Amino acid sequence: MIGLDDVKAAARRLHGVAHRTPVLSSSTLDERVGARVLLKAEPFQRTGSFKFRGAYNKISSLSDEERARGVVAFSSGNHGQAVALAARLHGSSATIVMPADAPALKLDATRGYGAEVVTYDRYTEDREAIGDRLAEERGLTVVRPFDDPLVMAGQGTAALELLEEAGGLDLFLAPVSGGGLIAGCATVVAPGARVVGVEPEAGEDTRRSLEAGERVEIPVPETIADALQITKPGELTFAVNSRLLDSVVTVSDVDLIEAMRFLFERLKLVVEPGGAAGVAALLAGKVEAAGTVGVVVSGGNVGAARFAELLRIH
Amino acid sequence: MIGLDDVKAAARRLHGVAHRTPVLSSSTLDERVGARVLLKAEPFQRTGSFKFRGAYNKISSLSDEERARGVVAFSSGNHGQAVALAARLHGSSATIVMPADAPALKLDATRGYGAEVVTYDRYTEDREAIGDRLAEERGLTVVRPFDDPLVMAGQGTAALELLEEAGGLDLFLAPVSGGGLIAGCATVVAPGARVVGVEPEAGEDTRRSLEAGERVEIPVPETIADALQITKPGELTFAVNSRLLDSVVTVSDVDLIEAMRFLFERLKLVVEPGGAAGVAALLAGKVEAAGTVGVVVSGGNVGAARFAELLRIH
Repeated sequence: MIGLDDVKAAARRLHGVAHRTPVLSSSTLDERVGARVLLKAEPFQRTGSFKFRGAYNKISSLSDEERARGVVAFSSGNHGQAVALAARLHGSSATIVMPADAPALKLDATRGYGAEVVTYDRYTEDREAIGDRLAEERGLTVVRPFDDPLVMAGQGTAALELLEEAGGLDLFLAPVSGGGLIAGCATVVAPGARVVGVEPEAGEDTRRSLEAGERVEIPVPETIADALQITKPGELTFAVNSRLLDSVVTVSDVDLIEAMRFLFERLKLVVEPGGAAGVAALLAGKVEAAGTVGVVVSGGNVGAARFAELLRIH
Repeated sequence: MIGLDDVKAAARRLHGVAHRTPVLSSSTLDERVGARVLLKAEPFQRTGSFKFRGAYNKISSLSDEERARGVVAFSSGNHGQAVALAARLHGSSATIVMPADAPALKLDATRGYGAEVVTYDRYTEDREAIGDRLAEERGLTVVRPFDDPLVMAGQGTAALELLEEAGGLDLFLAPVSGGGLIAGCATVVAPGARVVGVEPEAGEDTRRSLEAGERVEIPVPETIADALQITKPGELTFAVNSRLLDSVVTVSDVDLIEAMRFLFERLKLVVEPGGAAGVAALLAGKVEAAGTVGVVVSGGNVGAARFAELLRIH
């Protein structure tokens, strides 16, 4: 379990390093939703998503010796880039285990932050086994994407900043993948605000787990939200979320595309599919909203060509 | 002519009404340009462009009687929306003269801000004559898009805010259409910063006018930058700009699309073609940059479908 003090400690470590991302609003969005909606714009965070917060907090908490040996992470996406940059900023080195068929853009971006990329065949090899072997052979510390108290606390700093600017919140929304973002944020905003998670319809592992009262595993979800393709909640994140979340609602891929278009045209903001989940839930009427609503728009790592392709789908 | 005091007075009128837009940066952009680049993100301004600043400053300077009679503007784009909202916020009424074949999105947006839209045939009718007739018949005050000291001073507040956050600037870049934005901004940043305007290659009326030492008129320019399709500098703006501008450089439509793509993928920012002119000039190496460079990214009013279409061109 983590507490508000852990998030505040993370905020001190991130001060002057992570961007204090802007809080955006739109009168059109307020009218559509019937509430005052404040969007915490994490596409403007370093590496393009909130993931930098947790990765940096984790790596700054390592010993000098651990940092000298380096860190390892497995991720095809935002977490890998976040760990790569956070390691470089600490003068440490990062090894990122990525599928060989990951988009060249993501492979390049991760290498661009100075990481060594180790690729694997996602159909025949187990990335966790590769990561664990590298960790053992090279003495690397594994930086987990969500199931780590320091990672959760780091992600919670997004809510801390949002709450400071909002004054108070009645409702808080964030996308749920492994559950690290919403666990850290709920630690800050609950129980003052009702905390609702948003998952893609095909990837409702946390919603089902909350219903079942225990962690449920689902098949790899088919959704355009590549950042939310998780099959099972984390152990630590689920312990926090089962205590602090009011509920989890789901959105369709079409809801996500509509929200991406709205954010593009009205907010002038580039948001990746998973990052738009909170706004999608509001626009699709999946959650009752009143008063002041805080939403984490969690990331913006989508190429312009992919964005254009998604808009053609719907 | 206008002075720094006029811009400061505008800033006081706009305080708490206009958004103080964020100043964004990107280490990739800094590396590509070889300087520290600070982007003043006016897509986040109310109505999606810097135009709100000038329109609001103008309308707040009218007498109660003038405001009670209402205002009129002719514009197919950002200025019309800005005048519509600024009038509504003052409890005044706005009539916007727009071409009958303007995009439905822009007609709707302007009406959405509460304006009465009067359409005309852009091939057979003269919009200025229609505006003047309306002004006379109804006693309306014309809010000009750039050739007005109060409009210029309002636009200058963008530079005032940027300068406050930057500390100091060595180079300042902004798109040039009628010249109101750069005239107001140059009043703030020159001569401390070298001021360079950016025009589309097809629409270099200000560049040619500076070279000729007098206002030169060109045919309606063919460019994707619909916000920069002006044929002649303003009289008042040219008087300021011929005194304060170092130079004007030009960019191609392909340069603009490349800059829009870069701003989308790296900055997560939606920018319309004309709004990307300053960044396009930097990325295309059209201007020598060193030290701290301030750039006004002037607007983000481009639909998602149009954006996708532009990316396919190049």
